[in-house]
Amino acid sequence: MITLSDCLELDARDPLRDVRARFATPAEDTVYLDGNSLGAMPADVPERVNALLLDGWRDARRRGWSHFDWLEKPWLLGESLAHLLGVGARDVVFSDSTSVNLFKLLAYGWKLQSPRRVIVTERENFPTDVYVAEGLARFVGDGAQLRLIDGPDDLPAALDGDVAVVYLSHADYRSGYRWDMAATNRLIHGCGALAMWDLSHVAGAIAVELERDGADLAVGCGYKYLCGGPGAPSWLYVHPRLQHRDWPVIAGWMGHEDVFAFAQRYAPLDGVRRHLAGSPSILANVALSAAADLWKSIRPEDLNWKHRSLSTLMVALLEQRCGALGVKVTSPADYDRRGGHIAFSHPGAGSVSEALLAHGVVGSFRKPDSIRFGLSPMALSHAQIWTAVDRLAQVLQTEVWREPRFAHVSV
Amino acid sequence: MITLSDCLELDARDPLRDVRARFATPAEDTVYLDGNSLGAMPADVPERVNALLLDGWRDARRRGWSHFDWLEKPWLLGESLAHLLGVGARDVVFSDSTSVNLFKLLAYGWKLQSPRRVIVTERENFPTDVYVAEGLARFVGDGAQLRLIDGPDDLPAALDGDVAVVYLSHADYRSGYRWDMAATNRLIHGCGALAMWDLSHVAGAIAVELERDGADLAVGCGYKYLCGGPGAPSWLYVHPRLQHRDWPVIAGWMGHEDVFAFAQRYAPLDGVRRHLAGSPSILANVALSAAADLWKSIRPEDLNWKHRSLSTLMVALLEQRCGALGVKVTSPADYDRRGGHIAFSHPGAGSVSEALLAHGVVGSFRKPDSIRFGLSPMALSHAQIWTAVDRLAQVLQTEVWREPRFAHVSV
Repeated sequence: MITLSDCLELDARDPLRDVRARFATPAEDTVYLDGNSLGAMPADVPERVNALLLDGWRDARRRGWSHFDWLEKPWLLGESLAHLLGVGARDVVFSDSTSVNLFKLLAYGWKLQSPRRVIVTERENFPTDVYVAEGLARFVGDGAQLRLIDGPDDLPAALDGDVAVVYLSHADYRSGYRWDMAATNRLIHGCGALAMWDLSHVAGAIAVELERDGADLAVGCGYKYLCGGPGAPSWLYVHPRLQHRDWPVIAGWMGHEDVFAFAQRYAPLDGVRRHLAGSPSILANVALSAAADLWKSIRPEDLNWKHRSLSTLMVALLEQRCGALGVKVTSPADYDRRGGHIAFSHPGAGSVSEALLAHGVVGSFRKPDSIRFGLSPMALSHAQIWTAVDRLAQVLQTEVWREPRFAHVSV
Repeated sequence: MITLSDCLELDARDPLRDVRARFATPAEDTVYLDGNSLGAMPADVPERVNALLLDGWRDARRRGWSHFDWLEKPWLLGESLAHLLGVGARDVVFSDSTSVNLFKLLAYGWKLQSPRRVIVTERENFPTDVYVAEGLARFVGDGAQLRLIDGPDDLPAALDGDVAVVYLSHADYRSGYRWDMAATNRLIHGCGALAMWDLSHVAGAIAVELERDGADLAVGCGYKYLCGGPGAPSWLYVHPRLQHRDWPVIAGWMGHEDVFAFAQRYAPLDGVRRHLAGSPSILANVALSAAADLWKSIRPEDLNWKHRSLSTLMVALLEQRCGALGVKVTSPADYDRRGGHIAFSHPGAGSVSEALLAHGVVGSFRKPDSIRFGLSPMALSHAQIWTAVDRLAQVLQTEVWREPRFAHVSV
C-alpha cells in the first residue's frame, strides 16, 4: 500500500525540486494534469514579456533586432533543449508551428529520397501529422502516396524500396504507447527509408537520444511538456548528415546565409538553421525563453528519474485506489513503452472528467471512455499525484459524477 | 512655405486623432519613422497580454481553448482588417509568418494553374519574396521556373501562356514605388495568370480594394503599419472564386473542417480558413488584437486622407528644409504611386541616419545612400513630421553627421 508519506518522501528526493519552485502558482488549489496539452507557466514569464513590450517594442522598436537577441533566439532556444533530445547544440532550432515544421521536414526528407514515392505513417497518428502528409502527397502528386499502418506490428510488412520516409509519433496521443525508437529506426534504415519522428508527447517529459538512436528528422511542439505557453513555437531537428543535402522547402530570409544583406538570390544558412523561414514571433520566443532556462538546468537522467517515478506512482495509485471503482489503466504496463501521459478508461469517463474539474483536477477526456493525465516532471510533485488520485477516488466512490450537472462532455 | 502651425492645423482636422491617443508613449521624446519595419505599440497591449498569461495560461491552461476566443482569433483578427483591404470579412485570416504565408499561397496558386510552370516576379522584390519563389520552384522541379523582371515596364513582355502566377510587392521596400494594382491585374489576367500581391509595405498605411481591383491572392505582415508587434502573425487573402478549388498545401488541423473531432483524414474548412495550419501563438494573437481593435474603428477614407496628408507634407518639408542640404526625395513624385514610406538619398546617408538616431529620429538606412521614413497614419501626427524634418535639417546644417561617432553604418 502506497501512502501519502511515501509520496512526500519521493518529493524530498526529487532532483527537480528547484525547477518546480520556479513555476507560477495558480489562483486555485488545482492539480493540472494537462501538461500533455498545455504545460505550466514559469513564474517569470510576465516579467520577461513586459520587459520585451516596454524596452523592446515600445522603446527600441526596429532596433530591437540589433539591441536584443531577437535574431538569435530561434537557435538559442534550440541550444537549451539539445541535451534533453540527445542532439548537438547546433542541430535544433525553434520556429513556426508544429504543423508547419512537420510539413517542412517531411517535404525535405521526401525530396531527398526521390525517386521513392511512399510515406508510411500510422492511420491513428495524431490528426495533424496525417493531414500534413496527405496534403503533401496531394500537392506533389506524381505517384506520391501514403501507406497507413495500424501499429508497430504492421511496420515490417509496410517497408520496401518505395518507402521514402517513415513518419511516426514517438508516443501515441491517446494510449501513450511509446515506440522503441532505436529498434524502429534500425528497421526503417534497413529498407533505405528515412525515420521522421513527432516527439510532441515525449519531449520535456522524457529525455531521448535522437542522434544515438538514429532519428533522421524530428519535430515537437513547444507548449506541452516544454511549458512554452499556448501556441508556443515548435522545434525541429535534422541529422547532421542530412543538413546540407538541399535547400529548405520554405526558403525564407531568416534561413538565408546573411539575413540583413538583402541579397537578391537565396543561399542557405549553414546547417539546420536554413529551415528558419520568416520573422519569428518575438513575444512567443521571449515567453518560451523562461522555460528554456529551466530546460538548461536539468540533467537528462534527472528528468528521466522523475518522470519514471511519477508515471509508476500514478499507475500504482490508480490501481490501488480506483481499480475496484471501474478504472482500468490502458497505457502500456511496461514503463519503457509509455510516453508522457497515462491513459485510463472508465465507462463514465466524460462525466468523470467534468466532475474532476469541479474537484480541482484538470485532465482531458477522449471519446469514448478515456481520460488522460499528463505527467510533467518539471511542474508536478508526487504529492500532487496523490491528491489527484485521491480526488478521483472520491468522485467515483460518492458517484457524484452521475449528477446531471456533470453530464456535459468536455472537449 | 509650410510652417509648424500649418502642421498643427492639419492635426486638429486629423480624423485618426483618437486612434493616435491609444498608442503607448515611449520613454524618450523620439519620433519613430520606422513604422515600415516595426509599428508602434498600442497602450493596452501589456494589460491584454498579462491577462492572457494569468487568467489564460496560468489558470485556465488547456481550457483556454474553450473559455476564450483562442481558436477563433485568426479569423476575428482578419474580420477587423477586411474593410481596410477591401475584401469580405470572411476572406482574410491571420496565421504564421509572412514567408510561410507567401509559400502557402504561391504554392496553392501555382498548383491551380497547372500545367503552366512560370512564376513572374521582380528581380528586386523584397528578398524573402524572391527566396520563397526560388525555393518553391526548386522543390516542385518539373520545369518550374522564375521569370525575373526589372519593373512595371518589363511586365507586358514577360506575360505569356506559360505564366502561372505573377507575384509582386504592392510597394517596393526601398523606393516605396506602388504599383497600379487595378491596371496591373487586368494585364495579368489578360494572359490567364493569377495575380498575387505582398502588401507588407502598404496595408495599414493605405486602404486598398483588393477584390474590386482583381487581386487573386495576397499576403502581408502584421508588424509594420498594422502595429501588431515584433514578428506578429501575418495575414493572407484568397479571392472567393479560388477558395474552394483545392486543399491548402499545408493541411494542418487548424484548417480541418472540425478541428477538435480528431478525424483520421483531412477535410478542409470552408473558405480561406483552410489555410490555417498549426496552433497559432496565442500571445502573439492577443498582442495583435489590441491593434485590431484600432483597425476596426478606422474608416478607409480616413486612413487614406491621413496617409496622403502625411506623405505630401513630408515630401514638401524635405524639399523646403533639406533640398539645399543634399537631400533628394527618391520616392515617386506622384502620390498615387507611393507606398507607406518616403525614401530620400543623401551622400552621407549612413552617418546621417546614425546622427538622426542620436537626435531622436528613428528612420532606416539602406545601402548605399538611402534613408527611409515610414509614415504610419495611425501613430504619427503632422507635428511629428515637422519635428523630424526640423531635426534632420539641424543635423545637416551643423554637419554633426560628419563626426566620427556617427561613422558607424546602421543595419
